[in-house]
Amino acid sequence: MTLQEVERLIDSRATAFVASVDEAGFPNMKAMLAPRLREGLRTFYFTTNTHSMRVAQYRRDPKASVYFCDEAGFRGVMLRGTMETLTDAASRRLIWREGDTEYYPQGVDDPDYCVLRFTACDGRTYTDYHSENFVIEK
Amino acid sequence: MTLQEVERLIDSRATAFVASVDEAGFPNMKAMLAPRLREGLRTFYFTTNTHSMRVAQYRRDPKASVYFCDEAGFRGVMLRGTMETLTDAASRRLIWREGDTEYYPQGVDDPDYCVLRFTACDGRTYTDYHSENFVIEK
Repeated sequence: MTLQEVERLIDSRATAFVASVDEAGFPNMKAMLAPRLREGLRTFYFTTNTHSMRVAQYRRDPKASVYFCDEAGFRGVMLRGTMETLTDAASRRLIWREGDTEYYPQGVDDPDYCVLRFTACDGRTYTDYHSENFVIEK
Repeated sequence: MTLQEVERLIDSRATAFVASVDEAGFPNMKAMLAPRLREGLRTFYFTTNTHSMRVAQYRRDPKASVYFCDEAGFRGVMLRGTMETLTDAASRRLIWREGDTEYYPQGVDDPDYCVLRFTACDGRTYTDYHSENFVIEK
């Protein structure tokens, strides 16, 4: 897969899988809504609940990966990097959307709303029978 | 979700997501074909390539999780446990299927064919707006 194909795969997905390492050293993962914002293959912004288990895990250990999967096409891409939890006003507003009050009734400053910013350092593509690593430029 | 619903969700999926921790401490994940065999919610058998990156990671650190996701229904289940790499004759034969020579031309004793056995200790269900932990009985 070329990096352009990787970007197309990412943009075509409604769901991203995010992984963390818990306090006992086990990898954890869950599906999340696709990132709200993406800057190249390096930076991804997600909305999440401040009091979620994932946030607690990333605050303890920011090592993360994000995986996008086209199951039907047997293709996937895993990005490896670090996850920050942002609660500042600018970050909150950067990815806030009107309908989000459904999840965060107090609006953009709801204390249970926060932003996960993932910064990738490298990645690995998976296609039928073949995997390949790639580096992400700063 | 009841444990029966968890089992139904698992059995309805063509794909499982498996996670490991790499030598640098990052969580890694990838999609795999659904487990060939499942014993309750405790033991799962997958086929894989002996020389794959995942096998190398599990041999170094067996801590693992397996995730099944019904994206359309916003439901998922993560199982946490340990992953063993088995290459003995009985395990190989336990989950071998006729068409597997497509992937392993030398047949059931192909040195690049091996079995991943996942043993779960606990789990977490994800439904719309709600997550819940559960323990898996031995």
